Amino acid sequence: MATLQDICVSAAINLLSAFGFLLAFALLRLQPINDRVYFPKWYLKGLRESPRLSGAVVSKFVNLDFKTYINFLNWMPAALNMPEPELTDHAGLDSTVYIRIYLLGLKIFVPITLLALLVLVPVNFTGNTLDGIKDLTFSDIDKLSISNVQSGSNRFWVHLGMSYFFSFWTCYALYHEYKTIASMRLRYLASEKRRPDQFTVLVKNVPSDPDESVSEHVEHFFCVNHPDHYLMHQVVYNANSLAKLVAKKKSLQNWLVYYQTKHERNPGNRPIKKTGYCGLYGSKTDAIDYYTAEIEKLTQQEHEEREKVASDPKAIMPAAFVSFKTRWGAAVCAQTQQSSNPTIWLTEWAPQPRDVYWDNLAIPYVELSMRRLLMAICVFFLTFFFMIPIAFVQSLANIEGIEKNLPFLRPVIEKEYIKSFIQGFLPGIALKIFLIMLPTILMTMSKIEGFTSLSSLERRSAEKYHLFILVNVFLGSIITGTAFQQLHKFIHESSGQFTKTIGVSVPMKATFFITYIMVDGWAGIAAEIVRLVPLVMFHIKNTFLVKTEQDREQAMDPGSLDFATSEPRIQLYFLLGLVYSVITPVLLPFILVFFAFSYMVFRHQIINVYDQKYESAAAFWPHVHRRVIIGLVISQLLLMGLFSTLGVSKSTFVLGVQPILTIWFHIYCKGRFESAFKKFSLQDAMVKDTLERATDPNLNLRAYLKDAYVHPVFNGGDMERPVAIDEEESNPLVPTRRRNSHRSSDASSEATVLKI
Amino acid sequence: MATLQDICVSAAINLLSAFGFLLAFALLRLQPINDRVYFPKWYLKGLRESPRLSGAVVSKFVNLDFKTYINFLNWMPAALNMPEPELTDHAGLDSTVYIRIYLLGLKIFVPITLLALLVLVPVNFTGNTLDGIKDLTFSDIDKLSISNVQSGSNRFWVHLGMSYFFSFWTCYALYHEYKTIASMRLRYLASEKRRPDQFTVLVKNVPSDPDESVSEHVEHFFCVNHPDHYLMHQVVYNANSLAKLVAKKKSLQNWLVYYQTKHERNPGNRPIKKTGYCGLYGSKTDAIDYYTAEIEKLTQQEHEEREKVASDPKAIMPAAFVSFKTRWGAAVCAQTQQSSNPTIWLTEWAPQPRDVYWDNLAIPYVELSMRRLLMAICVFFLTFFFMIPIAFVQSLANIEGIEKNLPFLRPVIEKEYIKSFIQGFLPGIALKIFLIMLPTILMTMSKIEGFTSLSSLERRSAEKYHLFILVNVFLGSIITGTAFQQLHKFIHESSGQFTKTIGVSVPMKATFFITYIMVDGWAGIAAEIVRLVPLVMFHIKNTFLVKTEQDREQAMDPGSLDFATSEPRIQLYFLLGLVYSVITPVLLPFILVFFAFSYMVFRHQIINVYDQKYESAAAFWPHVHRRVIIGLVISQLLLMGLFSTLGVSKSTFVLGVQPILTIWFHIYCKGRFESAFKKFSLQDAMVKDTLERATDPNLNLRAYLKDAYVHPVFNGGDMERPVAIDEEESNPLVPTRRRNSHRSSDASSEATVLKI
Repeated sequence: MATLQDICVSAAINLLSAFGFLLAFALLRLQPINDRVYFPKWYLKGLRESPRLSGAVVSKFVNLDFKTYINFLNWMPAALNMPEPELTDHAGLDSTVYIRIYLLGLKIFVPITLLALLVLVPVNFTGNTLDGIKDLTFSDIDKLSISNVQSGSNRFWVHLGMSYFFSFWTCYALYHEYKTIASMRLRYLASEKRRPDQFTVLVKNVPSDPDESVSEHVEHFFCVNHPDHYLMHQVVYNANSLAKLVAKKKSLQNWLVYYQTKHERNPGNRPIKKTGYCGLYGSKTDAIDYYTAEIEKLTQQEHEEREKVASDPKAIMPAAFVSFKTRWGAAVCAQTQQSSNPTIWLTEWAPQPRDVYWDNLAIPYVELSMRRLLMAICVFFLTFFFMIPIAFVQSLANIEGIEKNLPFLRPVIEKEYIKSFIQGFLPGIALKIFLIMLPTILMTMSKIEGFTSLSSLERRSAEKYHLFILVNVFLGSIITGTAFQQLHKFIHESSGQFTKTIGVSVPMKATFFITYIMVDGWAGIAAEIVRLVPLVMFHIKNTFLVKTEQDREQAMDPGSLDFATSEPRIQLYFLLGLVYSVITPVLLPFILVFFAFSYMVFRHQIINVYDQKYESAAAFWPHVHRRVIIGLVISQLLLMGLFSTLGVSKSTFVLGVQPILTIWFHIYCKGRFESAFKKFSLQDAMVKDTLERATDPNLNLRAYLKDAYVHPVFNGGDMERPVAIDEEESNPLVPTRRRNSHRSSDASSEATVLKI
Repeated sequence: MATLQDICVSAAINLLSAFGFLLAFALLRLQPINDRVYFPKWYLKGLRESPRLSGAVVSKFVNLDFKTYINFLNWMPAALNMPEPELTDHAGLDSTVYIRIYLLGLKIFVPITLLALLVLVPVNFTGNTLDGIKDLTFSDIDKLSISNVQSGSNRFWVHLGMSYFFSFWTCYALYHEYKTIASMRLRYLASEKRRPDQFTVLVKNVPSDPDESVSEHVEHFFCVNHPDHYLMHQVVYNANSLAKLVAKKKSLQNWLVYYQTKHERNPGNRPIKKTGYCGLYGSKTDAIDYYTAEIEKLTQQEHEEREKVASDPKAIMPAAFVSFKTRWGAAVCAQTQQSSNPTIWLTEWAPQPRDVYWDNLAIPYVELSMRRLLMAICVFFLTFFFMIPIAFVQSLANIEGIEKNLPFLRPVIEKEYIKSFIQGFLPGIALKIFLIMLPTILMTMSKIEGFTSLSSLERRSAEKYHLFILVNVFLGSIITGTAFQQLHKFIHESSGQFTKTIGVSVPMKATFFITYIMVDGWAGIAAEIVRLVPLVMFHIKNTFLVKTEQDREQAMDPGSLDFATSEPRIQLYFLLGLVYSVITPVLLPFILVFFAFSYMVFRHQIINVYDQKYESAAAFWPHVHRRVIIGLVISQLLLMGLFSTLGVSKSTFVLGVQPILTIWFHIYCKGRFESAFKKFSLQDAMVKDTLERATDPNLNLRAYLKDAYVHPVFNGGDMERPVAIDEEESNPLVPTRRRNSHRSSDASSEATVLKI
């Protein structure tokens, strides 16, 4: 077990590395050449341009003004300065609410930490049980934990009371946060400008009709069943193969540009390319000619495919985006059942155009439920048995395995340093690669499940990832064993015994989790701000591909908040905090540092870097809420398990009431707030409609909606950044006053960022 | 353990008692004096009248035509003769679908029984394990069960295969039944005549407004938010105390009539009554004068209360029945969210007027969720700890307890025969009284939970009763021990161990359940048809209260299908059949007899006796389906538990797939069919609206709906049979052709019944 000294050393190392990252960030950030890596958001908003000031060439790349280096941490107050409403204007509600998760962490844990340190630590420390035991090795940390109190002592009632208070406080904070965010969402939706998705409903599973095309069928159905409200519809084309061609063409164009640049810099010899796979073998040809010809060919193919999709009735999928004359009509259609057969004419609110996941729009009902079953089974096996294939790869990747399977490599491997490298590194790397690929695997699974918008895909993946972290990181670290062994234990032990087993080992793992928090939560977050991968990628692209300002624009990779992976990670900290709040309170300050530091870093990133792919108006909050509740219930059950071994009579009964109340609280909150995130009330719709009729009586809605839901390949062909990225910005029909205020707030944020 | 002989004796006794009941029924049924007890349905329909034929006075009371006695079982074919569509016309869809539950039982278990008897019984019988064991007492039944097969034998694979086949067949039958009933329901709803509830939505939790009354607030809200569809609304008055007065008056009137009749028969002396509690003590007065005065007083009070309710704004509850111009408008309002605050302006389809449970219309959201939590806890304690108060009562009710608590009774108790009566009977009677009162207790709990219609109250109570039966009858009989001990076991044993424990004891309990089926399922059902309690009650009322034909009409108690208690009982038979289908197949024929016999009896009762209190158009089917699935999953888990002790390798894995597939099947069915029972599609609403506009363009809907949702006390004051009992019959506005066909089918059913 780690002693206090070990913890201190570890803390020092991690603080140093975090400090190192911050320093690197401070230096890199000030170089004009990196400006597009660290402030892409402002470039995308058109509020910042590449430095083209007169002066030395050097100053275009390197910052020579040494005064700016002095206060290298001054980004921190700047990040905190922007007020919340402005932040919402600037980066969208999703981002604002996302960083409120960290704020929620602070709200929950600051009072808990104070109370725990003031009350529980003295109670534990004066327990003096561990001093009496000579045989066991215990750390100084354990002296401050619940293990230091004698079994059966009345002091435990302090812990019980604190547990109730902490649960109450957590619920109270959660309730208020839910309420705030629900009203933020409603206000945001109410103040939103006109957007195509407000009038549009996605209709899936249009039944086939022998006499009518899909388009006619949709038209007739909605004319009959929504006679006063139906406006128009857009069918969905199956443009997946076309999209592939477009993507391929784009990659070839990049290569062409690369070779052209190469040729320009060295006009003497024309670049050469091998025609085989990946340019590794085959006959040599002139690269520029080769790519020009290939692109020519692809353009031809693309043209044919385009015509095919447009003319072939089979390319029309049995789904459509149906638009209504009013928001009220769309709200009605999205919330009601159209046909008595609930597997056809399924309606739901259309996602934002840029949020649509086009591949999944046409999955029949039966197939969908099969897919969900299969994926549920896959998630189960992935969570509990993922070690099996990895162990298999690891067994192949050791010295004997390689020698046996690839005997011709033997002379190389036998060398001492290579051998040690393989033995020390390869087994770990298999696991590491799996963990890096895990979010992609989970996202693929969610895609197979058939969700139709990027936002719902991310929420679904987050759910899976949360389960994985819960089982493999949290429980796995506590019970030490593979998830499969835990499962075995879970089945073969009684549920009471199981929680007892875990509950008892929780206090012993406190030091492990403290180091985990420092590595993953402190240094990891500091690494995030340096943006190493985008930095390198930008400079590579900048060197080889960029010719015009527009190219440079495209070379930027602002990235975005990755809800699917980062939210479940935050949840682990909530869980750790709640579990250890009563058991080992000294862990809490480490968690506080994590929340505070992350809040600052991500606020900075949201203001200056990230560019969200979609805006769901905080639709993810019910998930965040539910997972914190799950963490709370787990902490309560583990405490019950632990207490059942401590000889406090009646404690099981007293503690048993807690999870019931917590679950009831969750159900109550769900009924109270969730519909604000799932439905759009007719009253709100009516208010917006009335307002619009008053302000803009001559609006031609049909023209406005005409091309809103067209597959991005038909609409400029830019796959990566679909057209409708900011309808409100690009739409000339809506010259409202709000836009001006938006502009002015942008200007003030610009002022903010220039001060940095 | 019971031997084959014991079973035969028990079967003989139960068959005889069932036969006795049938004989009694056959004799009683033919007496004209009992005609209103055994054919009330026809009287209510106006198709049968009291025998007033000329002839001897005796023949008005006793049937002297001895030829009719010969074929005393001829009601059976008559009960089966009426075709299903006619039955639906005659008794409503609820009743038709209810007896289809028995039919479903037959559909599931006839093939299973045949296969099990042909395949599993020979396999078991030739297993010959029990013959080898001399020490154990085992019955002949056990020789036919799975216990007779040697541990680890390959014969078990036959059982595994059969288990899969049985599960598959059950799901197949369930799927088809769900499909059929969903389409029956949709057809029924589509062919329904105009009814107020089709146009009406129940709005609960109307927020209070300082400037407006509830009525104005509702009017304004719906005028604004459903401008094209809103028609009118009716506020809900809090008439609960008025209803109490009316009920009290009615009971006094009954007494008045009783004494008047007494006086008429014996004009010499006027009846006397004591004025104290229950007429047991106090000064004597003239009974007729006393009741006349009391009724006078109550009528005055009632009048005052009526005026108070009508004028006091506080008597208006924050709920309203809002009607729309079209069914489409109502469907939209019922399915959408009105306000962004999901705890106000809650809308749901209005129940039928006679289905409304008026007391629960005004419960605030927070209180509702508190009540649900409390009731959930109560149900838990009731299910698992109900033995504690009963044991307490029993401890009081033994000899020593009575002597100690009520010492003055000692001389009476000490007598030998009274002593033995108390010792043998009293402890049992406490449990019996509890079990008789249980449905009422559960119904009260459901009422506290705040459901707003009688049909939903019954469905909710059925859910609770099902849990109770599952835990206390099924599991209780198998593990033999109180539910509390089971709970203890469940918590302290691993889940694997728990199913194992139960699984192993299942085969040993087969004989017990066979006798249970015969007592409860055979003789119990036969007793149902005799209607002993209504028979006695009718004759008492007939003697003392009845003066006119109308009084006689009121003295009838047709009763109704009691879904809340009888459906969970059927589910027990499904569960037993599914559990024992693989383990002890000889139990299956007994279940078959139960289903067939019940089907016949209840079909007869529905045709001739029961008068449903409401019509929910088979809204209960999803519950029935879910509970059969629960039974199926339980049977699969128990089989897993049993097999894990039989030494068949891999069996756990093979059987473990079954529950997963079953649960998936359930989810699939839910998605596929459930909405047909919960929602009303806009397409169907539109079709009905269009049809009505074409057939009846001048309909004055406002007049039609004017008094539809008025509390029954304001509407004639007959509390027991609310006005709107058959709107389609009493409504002069709808002279459609269908009604004539209805009449003619009634006539043909009359022909059917007259043949009996």
